[in-house]
Amino acid sequence: MSENSILARLRRRAAPPRGSEVVLGIGDDCALFRPRRRDLDLVFTTDMLIEDVHFLRETHSAADIGWKTLARGLSDIAAMGAQPQFCLVSLALARDLDERWIDRFFGGLLRLARRYQTVLAGGDLARAAKVSCDIVVCGAVPKGTALLRSGARPGDHIYVSGVLGGSALGLETRSGRALKRHLRPEPRVRLGRFLREELGATAAMDLSDGLSIDLQRLCAASGASAEINAPLPVFPGATLDQALHGGEDYELLFTLP
Amino acid sequence: MSENSILARLRRRAAPPRGSEVVLGIGDDCALFRPRRRDLDLVFTTDMLIEDVHFLRETHSAADIGWKTLARGLSDIAAMGAQPQFCLVSLALARDLDERWIDRFFGGLLRLARRYQTVLAGGDLARAAKVSCDIVVCGAVPKGTALLRSGARPGDHIYVSGVLGGSALGLETRSGRALKRHLRPEPRVRLGRFLREELGATAAMDLSDGLSIDLQRLCAASGASAEINAPLPVFPGATLDQALHGGEDYELLFTLP
Repeated sequence: MSENSILARLRRRAAPPRGSEVVLGIGDDCALFRPRRRDLDLVFTTDMLIEDVHFLRETHSAADIGWKTLARGLSDIAAMGAQPQFCLVSLALARDLDERWIDRFFGGLLRLARRYQTVLAGGDLARAAKVSCDIVVCGAVPKGTALLRSGARPGDHIYVSGVLGGSALGLETRSGRALKRHLRPEPRVRLGRFLREELGATAAMDLSDGLSIDLQRLCAASGASAEINAPLPVFPGATLDQALHGGEDYELLFTLP
Repeated sequence: MSENSILARLRRRAAPPRGSEVVLGIGDDCALFRPRRRDLDLVFTTDMLIEDVHFLRETHSAADIGWKTLARGLSDIAAMGAQPQFCLVSLALARDLDERWIDRFFGGLLRLARRYQTVLAGGDLARAAKVSCDIVVCGAVPKGTALLRSGARPGDHIYVSGVLGGSALGLETRSGRALKRHLRPEPRVRLGRFLREELGATAAMDLSDGLSIDLQRLCAASGASAEINAPLPVFPGATLDQALHGGEDYELLFTLP
């Protein structure tokens, strides 16, 4: 299957809906976005998912990989309290992968994209020895209201949005709900908006590397220190170690006054 | 060198200039862009450069790779007649690469970024077996004026912006001006704007895969066919084959009424 025919098929599957601010999607040198409201800030994230580093092709289906590629980007958008607008994906395909694999990859990605009204607006295709997937997501948020890592103040309370360690447990046991957490993380897009609009969160970030590293980063950005004196919310069956250092939970870490 | 210390150093080197529409650069979950003018369209491109596919580490220096990573993205922005605004870069580093290599990579990238007033606003770092570099570039263009592939009309004249085949020749001979064309292509950003503002070009795209493939794409997008009845502008020493099929020249292909 040639690059041209893959693109032609994707163009049909991912056509921007009528009235979309993405006025030109897949097929030209660039995608074209026409912001309708002037009182918005645009936020951008990029995130790479690489074979044999972040996933194995033997254990992760094409649809899982497509889903997770986008989920990691959406999780960053959620952490800003923003609403996803569109994404672009750069995909390096291993030479032995066929049309069916590519179809399923984009099937997984587009399923999650639809859930959060994210238009697949473009990208790049290449062939390489290993699969790698880089996602770019653009989100929008009312001017000056994005949730930053740097907004936490001494005296704020620290929260996480769910239970931690599930992804690491799933990677180890390869079964049950924990495995689903690992393969198909759910980006906390609605919660991110709720934190910004309703709860007045002072800072937020997503938990991709693990609470132990990410809380340090939030503290460093905010010029504050943290104390944990309540038991951690641990995924059923996960160890404290997995909850602290496992990473890839894609829950939100945030602070409230 | 840890990810945190690489990022801290990059943050200083790539700080957005005062008054930039990039109000938040490297360091949070997302970069934040605050468009000042409402009469602009934003264009987005992404492009991947992969070790052993697009370059060899033995023959391409870290600075060359950094330069070329951005040059490919800027070339797409040029092809829309747009002005680059900011970029994000996802970089997978081979495990044996040290701090110096990373420094030089970003040195090459930032040198080109400064030349075209492009802010390095964020990205992602990972470790993998091979180097891969994915660039995202955002450009801006007055609403409704972007140069598309689809605008060519029967009777239009077809042009390329320079001589072709130099990059393929440089890859073969590994010497002289041709090698420089291959290693450090110059994106035609100013020419792209000139085509849009002064010449009233009807269609444009950049020549990355070679005239033989790319002219077909422009024709398909425009619903037109093309006839070449003048001698091709060939890079001194390159063959006709290299000029037609070599690719990676990053000149602009465009049409005028």
